Amino acid sequence: MAPVTNGRLLFNEIPTGYPEPGKTTVYDTSQTIDLENVSLRGGSLVKVLVLSSDPYLRGRMRDVTIPSYSPAFPIGEPLDNHGIGLVLRSEDPTLKAGDHVYGILPFEQYTIQERGARLHVLKNEVKIPWSTYIGVCGMPGQTAYCAWKEYALAKKGEVAFVTSGSGPVGATVIQLAKAEGLKVIASAGSDEKVAFIRSIGADVAFNYKKESTLEVLRKEGPINVFWDNVGGETLEAAIDTAAVGARFLMCGCISEYNGQPPYAVKNLSLIVGKQLKISGFIVFNLLAKYGQQFYAEIPKRVASGEIKYLEDATRGLENAGQAILDVQKGLNKGKKVIVVAEA
Amino acid sequence: MAPVTNGRLLFNEIPTGYPEPGKTTVYDTSQTIDLENVSLRGGSLVKVLVLSSDPYLRGRMRDVTIPSYSPAFPIGEPLDNHGIGLVLRSEDPTLKAGDHVYGILPFEQYTIQERGARLHVLKNEVKIPWSTYIGVCGMPGQTAYCAWKEYALAKKGEVAFVTSGSGPVGATVIQLAKAEGLKVIASAGSDEKVAFIRSIGADVAFNYKKESTLEVLRKEGPINVFWDNVGGETLEAAIDTAAVGARFLMCGCISEYNGQPPYAVKNLSLIVGKQLKISGFIVFNLLAKYGQQFYAEIPKRVASGEIKYLEDATRGLENAGQAILDVQKGLNKGKKVIVVAEA
Repeated sequence: MAPVTNGRLLFNEIPTGYPEPGKTTVYDTSQTIDLENVSLRGGSLVKVLVLSSDPYLRGRMRDVTIPSYSPAFPIGEPLDNHGIGLVLRSEDPTLKAGDHVYGILPFEQYTIQERGARLHVLKNEVKIPWSTYIGVCGMPGQTAYCAWKEYALAKKGEVAFVTSGSGPVGATVIQLAKAEGLKVIASAGSDEKVAFIRSIGADVAFNYKKESTLEVLRKEGPINVFWDNVGGETLEAAIDTAAVGARFLMCGCISEYNGQPPYAVKNLSLIVGKQLKISGFIVFNLLAKYGQQFYAEIPKRVASGEIKYLEDATRGLENAGQAILDVQKGLNKGKKVIVVAEA
Repeated sequence: MAPVTNGRLLFNEIPTGYPEPGKTTVYDTSQTIDLENVSLRGGSLVKVLVLSSDPYLRGRMRDVTIPSYSPAFPIGEPLDNHGIGLVLRSEDPTLKAGDHVYGILPFEQYTIQERGARLHVLKNEVKIPWSTYIGVCGMPGQTAYCAWKEYALAKKGEVAFVTSGSGPVGATVIQLAKAEGLKVIASAGSDEKVAFIRSIGADVAFNYKKESTLEVLRKEGPINVFWDNVGGETLEAAIDTAAVGARFLMCGCISEYNGQPPYAVKNLSLIVGKQLKISGFIVFNLLAKYGQQFYAEIPKRVASGEIKYLEDATRGLENAGQAILDVQKGLNKGKKVIVVAEA
């Protein structure tokens, strides 16, 4: 078989505001690959099926000299993120042709993975769509599950407030909270998203662009658990309406990722008197403790329909730059997945 | 014996800025008491010896309809706070004449305490000054001890930053941190205070009015534990220079107690990536867990000279209003105690 084009999405330029397709990222078709003969050097050849577009990717579009919890993208190289692949050939004893794998994959159609690359073979005994393994059954679901277990310390009858409620993290949090008997207040940025979060059980669901978060929380709170994907003014409203001893789970800060001036929070003195417990976290550091439990539990609950999810697919790696931008702008309707190949 | 004057410091008016003696509080000598014949109704008659002036009192000078962790002072009534008293007469079986007691006492020279008032009889087997039982061996020392035990999770070799380092809370924290092998950075608002915090073991001590907290922390950090008595810009500097996984112990926010406009903190998004753990707390809720341990350990360490403290006494209840103001302005040199009577 002749070599085929290996399309790649390259990181082209550090953005100052939103990451622009064609400027921040560029789709490149200059590379080819001979799938039958390319040397594996003891590793494996993986066909990339689905890639994930997540809010945190914006943080990786920075100068490589700035340290953070996840590595910066080097200019001129393909982006990478959690994805699902199909092993085509393998010299790595832990993988075999036909395996579906989950792990950090480059934004390219085909990839040679070194021996010992940390790819998790998906058994998928419950027969759910492969793409769910980058959403509710992947990193976003793990984020929700692990951090909720570690930090929510929720009791039946308490009140939780979840932002970005229709995203894969927020939607999972809502359902975990409901399953534990909490009253759940959740917000999102469109009426369609609000309808979805209501359909998965949120007791109070609202469009934060139409209703004041502070007013809703004043009416429906005080809140005992706050899941923060947003930061800024939303965080200030949550502090204002927090119950004594509330737990704040600090997962993200999308309100500041794209060059927006940071909103200055003015009510932090309430942390003392309300005895708030505020925990920032990164899922990678919680997986050792909860990862096994997660895979034993969540795919089953998804397969049974107990945990619902919403997926928003972009087809074609050439459209991945737009898929990344859409998530930064909150234009995705549910978990944004990039379908690179159908099988 | 004829009735004697019972001087009282009354709460006169809710302040908008600093609590002004003669305006916010008024010293009143209109009441008399017959020490031998006054009816105890099953309680006890206590002579107030020493009262405590603490930063948190400012929060109690509010409208009684505003809820908070400690009760508001009613207008026209004496203030109250932790103090040391001497039991003169008692019908309460848990107290006897001659006992020294610790507990919440009104700002008056003599007080009738109901039976079952929560007064703790001080044994003082280690023979330290009674006044230390409202400082390093009282509520401020308990605050430092209990919260450090619960939230610092410190490891030898880590770096702690302590604000208000010469106050009774901060000075105790510095010494607890040093005893556990941490490098301690501490700040205070005068060179005299800085000299004291250096004398009790702080590795880096600075006058925050002369040096930039942010610059000192950039040079001496990153910090693993932050003891916050101040809030505002200091908190922002601590977030900026925190190590991954740092613990923030939120004890107070003196920068905002007296009507100063709250400083707006702009870098809260760092909480996520740095995985900070921020804990607000109130000592009253930690005492059940650590109180017994505290009394078994700290008075001994004070008596042996291992834990040092600095006391700043104001003599005469008529000067208590000024003693309260001085603490709000940071003019006290060490633990501010109000000596109401010598014995």
